[in-house]
Amino acid sequence: MPEQLQWILGLLRDIDRDECLELLSTRQVGRIAYCTADGPAVLPVNHVVAGGAILFRVAPDSRLAAAIEGQRVAYQVDDFDEFYQSGWSVLARGTAEFIAPEELPARGSRPAPWPQGERSQYVRVKPETLTGRRVIPG
Amino acid sequence: MPEQLQWILGLLRDIDRDECLELLSTRQVGRIAYCTADGPAVLPVNHVVAGGAILFRVAPDSRLAAAIEGQRVAYQVDDFDEFYQSGWSVLARGTAEFIAPEELPARGSRPAPWPQGERSQYVRVKPETLTGRRVIPG
Repeated sequence: MPEQLQWILGLLRDIDRDECLELLSTRQVGRIAYCTADGPAVLPVNHVVAGGAILFRVAPDSRLAAAIEGQRVAYQVDDFDEFYQSGWSVLARGTAEFIAPEELPARGSRPAPWPQGERSQYVRVKPETLTGRRVIPG
Repeated sequence: MPEQLQWILGLLRDIDRDECLELLSTRQVGRIAYCTADGPAVLPVNHVVAGGAILFRVAPDSRLAAAIEGQRVAYQVDDFDEFYQSGWSVLARGTAEFIAPEELPARGSRPAPWPQGERSQYVRVKPETLTGRRVIPG
């Protein structure tokens, strides 16, 4: 935002791991980040949280799938209020594991992408680190 | 989101470069992604768009500053409506350049972080690639 719209500056507060996981589960969209030879890339996906892990789906033949399988990734979720200039963000870091249907939670609790397209490969990220911060009104 | 809440599946549509830049400038918060030895990381920052480039501020002595100076980064912005399961996302990729105050736009058009803290280093990312997609109701 440009500086002329600035209110009173906010305060930053760390969010503990349990609350990070809870906040992750409140959102339907998050962002998967991965590294390529040409630097990082970030794409939104629809996730669920199950058993302390993040689950989402990718197309098996996609560049995204090829880029993340077995690799270190980050998964980021946030929610900001532009009017009050406040909000929170959570960052999970771990390895993207391709998992078989047997490892999924019960039907009805599995991730379901909004857009059309065959995204039959389930991906799990168990957060090795899970950190978050709030910006609260100052 | 879990599958039981699924509506009709949406459609994906590419967004052209001009509209990507316009969408970037509609938001006050975006996400800077960078690569580390331990994989990618993603943090929200407040940005402005000026002269076709993304500008934001970092604390000069921060890990973020050390990680991105002169490096390939990605900058991501999006806006989703969870009720209608639709929205858009934009991804800019380029190099994070630390710039001097003389290279900034006029006062009043410079980036201003929401939280307190000394973030005196201005960073510019000129998008080498700028891509986006919408999910529209199917």
